[in-house]
Amino acid sequence: MPNPDFSMDIQISFGHCDPAGIVFYPNYFRWFDRCFHTYLQKTAGGHRRLCNVLDAKGIGLMDVHANFVSPAMDGDMMTLDMSILDWGNKSLTLGYLGRIGSRAVLEGTELRGMFVMREGRLRAGEMAPLRALLDAGLPETPST
Amino acid sequence: MPNPDFSMDIQISFGHCDPAGIVFYPNYFRWFDRCFHTYLQKTAGGHRRLCNVLDAKGIGLMDVHANFVSPAMDGDMMTLDMSILDWGNKSLTLGYLGRIGSRAVLEGTELRGMFVMREGRLRAGEMAPLRALLDAGLPETPST
Amino acid sequence: MPNPDFSMDIQISFGHCDPAGIVFYPNYFRWFDRCFHTYLQKTAGGHRRLCNVLDAKGIGLMDVHANFVSPAMDGDMMTLDMSILDWGNKSLTLGYLGRIGSRAVLEGTELRGMFVMREGRLRAGEMAPLRALLDAGLPETPST
Amino acid sequence: MPNPDFSMDIQISFGHCDPAGIVFYPNYFRWFDRCFHTYLQKTAGGHRRLCNVLDAKGIGLMDVHANFVSPAMDGDMMTLDMSILDWGNKSLTLGYLGRIGSRAVLEGTELRGMFVMREGRLRAGEMAPLRALLDAGLPETPST
Repeated sequence: MPNPDFSMDIQISFGHCDPAGIVFYPNYFRWFDRCFHTYLQKTAGGHRRLCNVLDAKGIGLMDVHANFVSPAMDGDMMTLDMSILDWGNKSLTLGYLGRIGSRAVLEGTELRGMFVMREGRLRAGEMAPLRALLDAGLPETPST
Repeated sequence: MPNPDFSMDIQISFGHCDPAGIVFYPNYFRWFDRCFHTYLQKTAGGHRRLCNVLDAKGIGLMDVHANFVSPAMDGDMMTLDMSILDWGNKSLTLGYLGRIGSRAVLEGTELRGMFVMREGRLRAGEMAPLRALLDAGLPETPST
Repeated sequence: MPNPDFSMDIQISFGHCDPAGIVFYPNYFRWFDRCFHTYLQKTAGGHRRLCNVLDAKGIGLMDVHANFVSPAMDGDMMTLDMSILDWGNKSLTLGYLGRIGSRAVLEGTELRGMFVMREGRLRAGEMAPLRALLDAGLPETPST
Repeated sequence: MPNPDFSMDIQISFGHCDPAGIVFYPNYFRWFDRCFHTYLQKTAGGHRRLCNVLDAKGIGLMDVHANFVSPAMDGDMMTLDMSILDWGNKSLTLGYLGRIGSRAVLEGTELRGMFVMREGRLRAGEMAPLRALLDAGLPETPST
């Protein structure tokens, strides 16, 4: 992932770790999710604004995978890189790489859909309008 | 607390514990909250039903306290007792006692309010209608 | 998964859910992990005992995957089935199926290794001794 | 709290919030704990180093309290201030204030002890050696 679309630093803390002294693995997925939502926040005003504009219920998970390469522990600073790997008609694939310095901690992917209510059922909606909003970015604040 | 209003068993697991091998303390509050919500579920059909009937946004926290008496660890079965300690006009005080067998693990209290939207603002509403619904319990399923 | 090796019921609670009103997905992995550890507890006295007997640091994650089929929400009772899918020389593959009644919520797999300290490094150890202990079960309590 | 001993920013994310759209309250305690541990990290090399030097098992909770003043939600940036309120012989009282801009979100206190193994039992140890290490700070890295 030479050019991630978004990166954030995670200060690994005591409470993230289990009795073996390493990160309790579900926490990595809380960070995947937080990374994506922070990206939405910085790029397009956040999940709530996007859902309002797009009349969607949420941009949620359909599939997730992670491969744990090496452990992280209390005191480590992990950089989490996120890349948009693929836009499908009704899905978005995100890639994640967590690393401490140059050492890989984990790699993973999320497959997300945008869920909309149609004819009384929750369905995966078209992704093109979401993509357009993310590409457009936030409107400029008028200078006067 | 000789006669708790509700009790649940919590199987303490590896992932609830920190590198010192004991329960990471914020988990106790997840269990307080789960105990209260399970009580609502069993007694009156759950938080969502109650909020719909009462036109409320939620029955949430105003204040919380806990005293940690002894540690719990992976493999322990903790019984969590909940008692309704006091109904105020606009609040409800709940008491909690966690124990492993006869050994106390923690004691705590939650002060909760029922939040309603009035004149565009979120306010603590009157508790009497909630109390009445909890006292009434679930409607009987008709026997035929 | 017609004959799971272990099953547990998860009462989905308010605090497990996100602003879209459905389970926040990292929680499913907390339940995968809890299911496996509860299985160890019931079958062989728990993770700590096994690690002591086998001189291991932990039985942890190498890879995980989940596919989210339908949402779960506050008030749902989810049954989580766990099956031992495969024993490798240095790994164990576990399959999970979460369902509410007959409706599938998610399917997933965990690939776990048993980590041991050898020559100053943490390595994946042989799984045969762990398998033997799980097959043997807990020693009978002598009747006198 | 005019001069907190430590402050950190918490970017409130979607996954921190519950179906009412506001922070699920146990998360505030994860942030209290993370704030204290990050303070230990920055000031004295972290919890593990301190426990090694002081032959302690952990610097853990004896009592905690929080008062929730106003809600926080997805997209909010909360500043969490921590102040050392009091050193007792065998305890340390920490005060916390969470705020979004100038609006208070919550106030709380943690009472912590340093747990040491003495004569086969876990006890609250003397705090003076911990205080001395925190006051001394990290040793200077030699300039040559």
